[in-house]
Amino acid sequence: MPFVGPEQHERAEGVVFRARLGANESVFGPSPKAIAALRDADAEIWKYADPSHHDLKAELSARLGCTPANIVFGEGIDGLLGYLVRLLVAPGDAVVTSDGAYPTFSFHVTAYGGTLHKVRYRDDAEDIAALFAKAAEVNARIVYLANPDNPMGSWHSGAAIQAALPLLPEGCVLALDEAYIEFAPEGTAPDIDIDDPRVIRFRTFSKAYGMAGARVGYAFGAADTIRAFDKIRNHFAMNRAAQAGALAALQDDNWLDGIRDKVVAARARIREIALANGLTALPSATNFVAVDCGGDGTFAKAVLQALTARGVFVRMPFVAPQNRCIRISAGTPADLDILAAELPGALADARAAVAN
Amino acid sequence: MPFVGPEQHERAEGVVFRARLGANESVFGPSPKAIAALRDADAEIWKYADPSHHDLKAELSARLGCTPANIVFGEGIDGLLGYLVRLLVAPGDAVVTSDGAYPTFSFHVTAYGGTLHKVRYRDDAEDIAALFAKAAEVNARIVYLANPDNPMGSWHSGAAIQAALPLLPEGCVLALDEAYIEFAPEGTAPDIDIDDPRVIRFRTFSKAYGMAGARVGYAFGAADTIRAFDKIRNHFAMNRAAQAGALAALQDDNWLDGIRDKVVAARARIREIALANGLTALPSATNFVAVDCGGDGTFAKAVLQALTARGVFVRMPFVAPQNRCIRISAGTPADLDILAAELPGALADARAAVAN
Repeated sequence: MPFVGPEQHERAEGVVFRARLGANESVFGPSPKAIAALRDADAEIWKYADPSHHDLKAELSARLGCTPANIVFGEGIDGLLGYLVRLLVAPGDAVVTSDGAYPTFSFHVTAYGGTLHKVRYRDDAEDIAALFAKAAEVNARIVYLANPDNPMGSWHSGAAIQAALPLLPEGCVLALDEAYIEFAPEGTAPDIDIDDPRVIRFRTFSKAYGMAGARVGYAFGAADTIRAFDKIRNHFAMNRAAQAGALAALQDDNWLDGIRDKVVAARARIREIALANGLTALPSATNFVAVDCGGDGTFAKAVLQALTARGVFVRMPFVAPQNRCIRISAGTPADLDILAAELPGALADARAAVAN
Repeated sequence: MPFVGPEQHERAEGVVFRARLGANESVFGPSPKAIAALRDADAEIWKYADPSHHDLKAELSARLGCTPANIVFGEGIDGLLGYLVRLLVAPGDAVVTSDGAYPTFSFHVTAYGGTLHKVRYRDDAEDIAALFAKAAEVNARIVYLANPDNPMGSWHSGAAIQAALPLLPEGCVLALDEAYIEFAPEGTAPDIDIDDPRVIRFRTFSKAYGMAGARVGYAFGAADTIRAFDKIRNHFAMNRAAQAGALAALQDDNWLDGIRDKVVAARARIREIALANGLTALPSATNFVAVDCGGDGTFAKAVLQALTARGVFVRMPFVAPQNRCIRISAGTPADLDILAAELPGALADARAAVAN
């Protein structure tokens, strides 16, 4: 199982989280118009949702400048990544990802019997050249790249991705996970022809749009690739109210702009809190900040555990050397006040714990 | 794709359905307590749901008299059937179902490369003896049985299922779809040891609980069988508000009792409308009634199309001789007034259409 949820931690460890900063949720919530749409739709929850996601696709295709046939919606990016692996990966087929990248993608590859080949991060960023070279070496069916990256918050320019595409081996698909793209600087999203069969892109309503609990993600790419999902997907899997909420969220550009501003402010505050504690905050193009705790993975884990015990939920990278960091999601000012109050004590606890 | 949704029909055919009686949804809606729980949870839709479904499992296991380890929740029975097929069926493996039974199960088997073996209905009911004999003959991995049956509404006693279990071949699992069990007479649910590895049962919040749009289904059975789902399922796939709503729905026994009464009344009314038009209503242990239109599949389809054109959404069985029927869901009195008003004209239209 890829992740333990915060409620599971609370039950297992007997704590109550006062600041929920571990899952890169949007603590600022979705547009009030989205919540209103959810609540309106709740009255009709007895109806199955439209399995063709017509209204959402119509709005989104206009915004992306493509056709509805270039888009498939699903139960979060997690669900869509699973479908992609199922479509492309037979048992024993090679798949390339980074060591320490999003574990749910690797979970699906393993569960479908694919063979994972992992490339190291370079300077706390996924290494595009190494990923694509490995894909060519092992004749991979899929290479996974998150841009911006989770868990480090680093990013590449869209131009760098475009420039690397000719290095993809024949028949290999780039699964480009853009879950955090709305937080990234202009130019982070590559300019790729929607009908280019080498790339399929994934985005979500779980992050900037503040609807993680609704389970609405989408993939877009060449119509042939997208059409294949219809042969296998769970057509009626998406919640009816979630569709209505996502449509309203998508249409509220002002809210999204405001969220971007709040996240910029929260990243700055996390950086400031880190600095005040002698720690280093890594640059981030996402709604979280990886904070280098100044030691190894054992020390960062001790910091995480001390924060947990103090009611602050954070997560951390799995793999060295990235696991010298903890990953802190953009919080409200009140959340970050709690972080600021608890971090000094947590660091002291962690130093005491590793000294023993 | 297993089903075309009513909104898709409306767009394709330029109609607006005034009575939505085709998808066996509960037009009476869920408990008002469930809607209140959905709306409360909408305020926290920015949070991922608990991927372990702890609260729902705790309540449900107490009601079923089993442990939480005997239950897995998922994105409707559809999603869980897909997971079951994935777990048990390798390409070429045999699977047995009835010809004309729930098509989404067959969709999953085909999509995973299984080989479907179909057994004919007997007297408009699934034929347990023939299903289990075919399973033994082809060495099936799964045999599917819906009890009560969709689309015919027929049912077997739980005792008949129990008596047949020794006929299942070694290593074959009975997937017992009990989506409509809450509407069935006492004694329809078999009494099977929860740890019996030969059976896995499926139930849903989409029918009697009135939450089709929420996507909450569950499977229960032997803990080893259930545990296997965790290796492959989309752990964060379920909507957060849906979990809260389902919990509230589960706890409102009075509402469920009231729904049963309303469905009994609606079935009687559908029977009465059928009789008034010279048609025969089949017995039903579900929230729908199969109505024999007195001709063949072509005639029933013409009736269905005429009803569609008149704003009444119904569906029909796919396979002869069951496809002499149309399938009408339990509606509100107002819905059934519309059916009563439109059926005579639809029958006249259909007779004219098949005469040409």
